[in-house]
Amino acid sequence: MKKELAIIAAAAFLFACSPKTEQNMDTTKIFPKGESLSKDWFTGNAYLTPLVSKDKNNNFSAGSVTFDPGARTNWHTHPKGQALLIIEGQGLYQEKGKPVRPIKKGDVVNIPENIEHWHGATSTSTMVHVAITNYEGEEQVTWLQPVTDKDYDESNKAANNRL
Amino acid sequence: MKKELAIIAAAAFLFACSPKTEQNMDTTKIFPKGESLSKDWFTGNAYLTPLVSKDKNNNFSAGSVTFDPGARTNWHTHPKGQALLIIEGQGLYQEKGKPVRPIKKGDVVNIPENIEHWHGATSTSTMVHVAITNYEGEEQVTWLQPVTDKDYDESNKAANNRL
Repeated sequence: MKKELAIIAAAAFLFACSPKTEQNMDTTKIFPKGESLSKDWFTGNAYLTPLVSKDKNNNFSAGSVTFDPGARTNWHTHPKGQALLIIEGQGLYQEKGKPVRPIKKGDVVNIPENIEHWHGATSTSTMVHVAITNYEGEEQVTWLQPVTDKDYDESNKAANNRL
Repeated sequence: MKKELAIIAAAAFLFACSPKTEQNMDTTKIFPKGESLSKDWFTGNAYLTPLVSKDKNNNFSAGSVTFDPGARTNWHTHPKGQALLIIEGQGLYQEKGKPVRPIKKGDVVNIPENIEHWHGATSTSTMVHVAITNYEGEEQVTWLQPVTDKDYDESNKAANNRL
């Protein structure tokens, strides 16, 4: 009898606290998941909720970007840099010619100007970051080539070895 | 018997998912709680974890600010405005002469330049926001008088009536 109760209690615990499945996850834990980002600049499923727009005070825009597992930006540069505040999950950040950097909830990345780089989720985890992207005039980003599956797989392996 | 099982399952649910008590909450759900903010400019217990510093690209600083229940800023102004991204809990935002605005996780406040205002937790909830504060030269903020207990209590009541 005690065993039966323990099993039911354990089942209730698991049911109550298990994370939502991917297909039900329409919002992140903080901001809405938002609209799909273009396949021209992203591989896999990435989404944007704009939070703050450029105006007479803010020489940046800020938004919440959600990367489903496997999703990542193309390689790209920012003329005046970008700050990433990781608010959920685990991901990867890499500057051209440098080792991949694993990033996770609570981390901050201050991306320099004109440095070719990419960021995204790991192959097994969602990653959400707030991106604060500075403007140089009306320009924020120059998009380049996709991160190939081969390079992405190698980066995931390298990151796993460093965790 | 079924009743007994239901009670145990419910107890397991509550135990598993109840939030941590205040006294154990050393970190927010995302960023560290950080260092105490000065009683000169804040009423109650408020904390800051700096996230992004002013540099040649970023004409702002960004930080995670945690307000324990009852904590709030003094009245103050920003010469180039400030954006708040609320990432946890419930709080209050008020501009001088306007009704108090209840704010909660997922909300964004884009504060204009030179507008006297205050923000903080409600009397019963922690509130955490990322603050992105623009610079005008080397200036970010002008601190003014505290929000009195009387005005704070009235704002909490007004916010409760609007929820």
